[in-house]
Amino acid sequence: MKTEEQKRRPSKKPRAHTASSKGPSAVVRIGVIGFGYWGPNLVRNFQDLDRSRVVAVADLRKSVLTPLAKRYPALRLTTVHQEILRDPAVDAVVIATPVSTHFELAQTALQAGKHVLVEKPLAASSSEGTELINLARRKGRILMVGHTFEYNPAVLKVAELLKSQELGELYYIDSVRVNLGRYQSDGRNVIWDLAPHDLSIILHWVGKIPQRVSAFGQAYLQKGTADVAFIRMEFPGGTLAHVHLSWLAPAKIRRMTLVGSKKMVLYDDLDPSEKLKIADRGAHLDANSTEVRVDYRMGDVVSPHLDFKEPLKTECEHFLDSIFGNRPPRTDGENGNRVVRILEAADQSMKEGGRVISL
Amino acid sequence: MKTEEQKRRPSKKPRAHTASSKGPSAVVRIGVIGFGYWGPNLVRNFQDLDRSRVVAVADLRKSVLTPLAKRYPALRLTTVHQEILRDPAVDAVVIATPVSTHFELAQTALQAGKHVLVEKPLAASSSEGTELINLARRKGRILMVGHTFEYNPAVLKVAELLKSQELGELYYIDSVRVNLGRYQSDGRNVIWDLAPHDLSIILHWVGKIPQRVSAFGQAYLQKGTADVAFIRMEFPGGTLAHVHLSWLAPAKIRRMTLVGSKKMVLYDDLDPSEKLKIADRGAHLDANSTEVRVDYRMGDVVSPHLDFKEPLKTECEHFLDSIFGNRPPRTDGENGNRVVRILEAADQSMKEGGRVISL
Amino acid sequence: MKTEEQKRRPSKKPRAHTASSKGPSAVVRIGVIGFGYWGPNLVRNFQDLDRSRVVAVADLRKSVLTPLAKRYPALRLTTVHQEILRDPAVDAVVIATPVSTHFELAQTALQAGKHVLVEKPLAASSSEGTELINLARRKGRILMVGHTFEYNPAVLKVAELLKSQELGELYYIDSVRVNLGRYQSDGRNVIWDLAPHDLSIILHWVGKIPQRVSAFGQAYLQKGTADVAFIRMEFPGGTLAHVHLSWLAPAKIRRMTLVGSKKMVLYDDLDPSEKLKIADRGAHLDANSTEVRVDYRMGDVVSPHLDFKEPLKTECEHFLDSIFGNRPPRTDGENGNRVVRILEAADQSMKEGGRVISL
Amino acid sequence: MKTEEQKRRPSKKPRAHTASSKGPSAVVRIGVIGFGYWGPNLVRNFQDLDRSRVVAVADLRKSVLTPLAKRYPALRLTTVHQEILRDPAVDAVVIATPVSTHFELAQTALQAGKHVLVEKPLAASSSEGTELINLARRKGRILMVGHTFEYNPAVLKVAELLKSQELGELYYIDSVRVNLGRYQSDGRNVIWDLAPHDLSIILHWVGKIPQRVSAFGQAYLQKGTADVAFIRMEFPGGTLAHVHLSWLAPAKIRRMTLVGSKKMVLYDDLDPSEKLKIADRGAHLDANSTEVRVDYRMGDVVSPHLDFKEPLKTECEHFLDSIFGNRPPRTDGENGNRVVRILEAADQSMKEGGRVISL
Repeated sequence: MKTEEQKRRPSKKPRAHTASSKGPSAVVRIGVIGFGYWGPNLVRNFQDLDRSRVVAVADLRKSVLTPLAKRYPALRLTTVHQEILRDPAVDAVVIATPVSTHFELAQTALQAGKHVLVEKPLAASSSEGTELINLARRKGRILMVGHTFEYNPAVLKVAELLKSQELGELYYIDSVRVNLGRYQSDGRNVIWDLAPHDLSIILHWVGKIPQRVSAFGQAYLQKGTADVAFIRMEFPGGTLAHVHLSWLAPAKIRRMTLVGSKKMVLYDDLDPSEKLKIADRGAHLDANSTEVRVDYRMGDVVSPHLDFKEPLKTECEHFLDSIFGNRPPRTDGENGNRVVRILEAADQSMKEGGRVISL
Repeated sequence: MKTEEQKRRPSKKPRAHTASSKGPSAVVRIGVIGFGYWGPNLVRNFQDLDRSRVVAVADLRKSVLTPLAKRYPALRLTTVHQEILRDPAVDAVVIATPVSTHFELAQTALQAGKHVLVEKPLAASSSEGTELINLARRKGRILMVGHTFEYNPAVLKVAELLKSQELGELYYIDSVRVNLGRYQSDGRNVIWDLAPHDLSIILHWVGKIPQRVSAFGQAYLQKGTADVAFIRMEFPGGTLAHVHLSWLAPAKIRRMTLVGSKKMVLYDDLDPSEKLKIADRGAHLDANSTEVRVDYRMGDVVSPHLDFKEPLKTECEHFLDSIFGNRPPRTDGENGNRVVRILEAADQSMKEGGRVISL
Repeated sequence: MKTEEQKRRPSKKPRAHTASSKGPSAVVRIGVIGFGYWGPNLVRNFQDLDRSRVVAVADLRKSVLTPLAKRYPALRLTTVHQEILRDPAVDAVVIATPVSTHFELAQTALQAGKHVLVEKPLAASSSEGTELINLARRKGRILMVGHTFEYNPAVLKVAELLKSQELGELYYIDSVRVNLGRYQSDGRNVIWDLAPHDLSIILHWVGKIPQRVSAFGQAYLQKGTADVAFIRMEFPGGTLAHVHLSWLAPAKIRRMTLVGSKKMVLYDDLDPSEKLKIADRGAHLDANSTEVRVDYRMGDVVSPHLDFKEPLKTECEHFLDSIFGNRPPRTDGENGNRVVRILEAADQSMKEGGRVISL
Repeated sequence: MKTEEQKRRPSKKPRAHTASSKGPSAVVRIGVIGFGYWGPNLVRNFQDLDRSRVVAVADLRKSVLTPLAKRYPALRLTTVHQEILRDPAVDAVVIATPVSTHFELAQTALQAGKHVLVEKPLAASSSEGTELINLARRKGRILMVGHTFEYNPAVLKVAELLKSQELGELYYIDSVRVNLGRYQSDGRNVIWDLAPHDLSIILHWVGKIPQRVSAFGQAYLQKGTADVAFIRMEFPGGTLAHVHLSWLAPAKIRRMTLVGSKKMVLYDDLDPSEKLKIADRGAHLDANSTEVRVDYRMGDVVSPHLDFKEPLKTECEHFLDSIFGNRPPRTDGENGNRVVRILEAADQSMKEGGRVISL
């Protein structure tokens, strides 16, 4: 039986806990809250990893839990998520519910001494986010945000190219994330639904906070809920980022373009074989010329081989690494709250017809 | 021999003129000014058509005329375009020069009683455009703008779909026109260079003038000359149009998306075989539902067969039709000046950091 | 304990079995043999279906079973497949092992009164296949082959088009199935590995047995094991089918083309959004012409919406339907053995340098 | 005035000839016979080059010549090609007529002392081809075949890769050249129509003559005229080449794949931006392994930048270079006749149902 102390500090104790239960190795016992679109992937990954075991899953809808019972007979299933949050047999809680509930669920879990992995975005407001960050710090628990793309091999490869200056100075990033349909029905608009992906990727690449954000959107289907939006971000140093989001599009597109002074990159997340294309192309002013002249360079295009590994698996492993190593994850609360702050600014700008908001 | 009067009013007289010269049919004698990127296509088309003949070509650069001499030995070539503008043996002048020269060249040609086909955009300002429109009216001559895309089978097919309400209510148009490189070196920015295409197409489709225009751009290579820009237009009735323009992009893209309440259209001008895809897809609010629910419809995608005909050829034929029929062309001065007015507004907005400008 | 009679007629008795165990509905208890590339998909599907439950999995390699233990703790795992074949608590056996073992495993299972779903190809020779067919008939058990593509919405849609004569007379089918790599290491060549897919699809579409088969192949990596091959089949009525197979190709291709006298179809199994394109294109001889003249027709291309359902799930459901309904499945032993006969002929032809073999 | 001797040996005299006519530089006077699909491109290119001038064009169909009269008023147009063949003011004859006429036209032109560029294939039989080769040699005139693809930057780049052993040992080449429609109506089948392209490219790459050729085809539209065919060639050293040809296909495909022991190449002639993809992928047997094991290597894909130059222009320039340098062109009669010999063998094999023919 575990003491209260053990329950409150599992980050230092998973090894002890398992040792005491005579297991061959430490195992983090995971409780998952929310079993909608993304929950099943989280359950599958944490169940398959050696160092974790899913012990309980909660969802308000009994119907979504039924098939789970058959697949994982040993799993505790409940419609009362409070049971999981308070269960001493749970070391870490994974929250995959609508964003409006993130704060309360994460807060309760942290207060109960659990580590928390919360789906993107971290919270419905940056003030909620700040409170969670502080709470996790006080409790000495891991707070991680599920910015899956920051564990994606293509995104990481581009980050390398930027770091090594292979692209030169980064002029701008253009991102298109459109498709027909939406998965959530919690009243959030297309910015809150889709932009967390783009924003976490772009912040990861640029490594800075934008100085100015503006957004414009239209609500075609539901009054008050934008289903098409454009976000613009201006970063210190002159880099521009533009994001096009839509739930109303004939085809699914997940395409990001980076234009640097030396090279350019196309990242098409839907391309099964060549997700990344690095084009040795660019343009520069001919300084020797008496008249202004632009020279264009057209070189090879390289599509680097990317080892395939499910990004969510890497993310789940990183969560476990952070727990065992007792160190902040790469996509910690601060990281997650930076995205929330831009979502707030973009949402605000959109409500004011595109007013530029300084951060 | 032709009288001065005949020379001044060829629009009513090409038939007479040719009859008097005992030709089997009327032929419009064309003078082309500007033999850069687009000029050769204009020369080829007017030369090949039965009802026209290119009689003279002017360009300030002697070097570009030399190869022409060999290909068309009968052609008069000159570096002094004034010769053409004043030549009584020229019935119509085609202007394919930098936009800054359009006004003066078109004005002189119209005053000399020539019909005028001027490349897009019509003029460097809408006040210049208005003057040309008035002059053409006073002189009873045809003034046409080379909005080639308004003669493109794919663009015309989409216009049909919109007219027949097959797409339902038009929610928004998104256009991406990016590539590496530019063709002009007359100081104009990417908006003045590339947007005339998008604007002429979008106005043709929507059939209205936008109420509000805003634009944002960045100048990476040359201070003061934007090479990347985004334009947003809000039309009466709620249709939104967004245009992404760039001279700095790893790959050439010419893609327009139309989203209607019933169907959606993808128009990829670079697709050699399926330029147009009409997707029977959409979403609507389920009104009977007590809670807000969006239903998505996924149907077939149809790529209609489009008879291939070079749009420029259709445009040139339409110019001749307008001359012979003495009626305003579809892309007349008014049409061209609507595009100029939006270019002006977008340019102004861009200079003011994206301020929304009401038209 | 079940009587022989029960074993022989389980199609009528799964219900009884479950009834006797007081379950709310009949459930077929599945044993899976072989847990390599495809086995996990079979386990997942049969586990998730309401009418079946996976009760045991066997594989010679203990290492592949270990992760399974964690995911499905209730599952019996064994390296001794004989245990499953003889277990009275198993109603049906699913065989996903190398083809050389199919016969023995299926034979033992049928003899023990189990229903059998065996992966493609049915057996290593048609004489083995015939024996299995006869044994299943004698035992009154279902023998089904896992020709997954015959449960694929795109393949079924094409079959409809052919049946309704929408394509007209079927001239020829061209299939390209190439990629880098192979999954099996049981000595079989590229024909035995990849062609079962093409052959089952083509026979399903044409509905006839080819009169003549020939094949040509080369063994680049391993002496005696062709890694590149071409198969040609001539069907009664003049339809030709050509299949290109390779384990040595720079990119994965899964593309089939059907050319009919009226329409043509492209089926690209890797296209995420438009797997099927039906082109209203064709050519016919102009009979009225005094000279021979071919007229071409270029019409629309339609990409029909296909409801997405995992073909393997449909296949598994069909296996259960066949058991409960006590009727032969669509891809029964006869169907599977037709594919084996063509594999044999193609292999034979290849060994003789392409000799045409009459069936 | 030129002497008969001068007329008979223009290959040594173009410079003298032009010098005598006081021109600023030597110009080869070209007569073109055949103004169908390809003729206009030949006329345009030879007319635009500095060192040549098209002086006459012949075609049996007066209708196709009429538009030409307007475009090139100085050109002599005739329906009597004999006039051109005998004209002392013509230095070189370009033959772009149906293949059945190549021999007679080329023979007459060579006998009249003209240089000859004949469209592919060189002749309707290799014995005709041999006669032309011998005649050109006796007459000291250039005989060149219009194997345009041997002047194509993508084809030449692949040849470089092969020469430098970058692909390793060449295992096989697969070529797909299909589309809906045909351009000639001279009774030739799809092999004679389309295969000259593939064969000239493949021979250029492999640098050897195949030992064995076989072909299989079907005639769907016109009895006796195959519209679908497959050709197989086995080269000394083990390289295999397979060619799929069709006039009955839903979409146009021009795709060649080369598989080497080290790298693989995709050449898609219709891709506007990435015609060539060089994949650093391969497989090899693991020799150290006690059991047979194949290792796969998945590396980067590089799409090299290819400078765009119209291959036909390079071809025309090479014809002029050969005339002025008095040296055999790269695609001389021998080169052209190798292709004809394979066409003959393939045609023969096809008529015998795919019999393997040794060369």
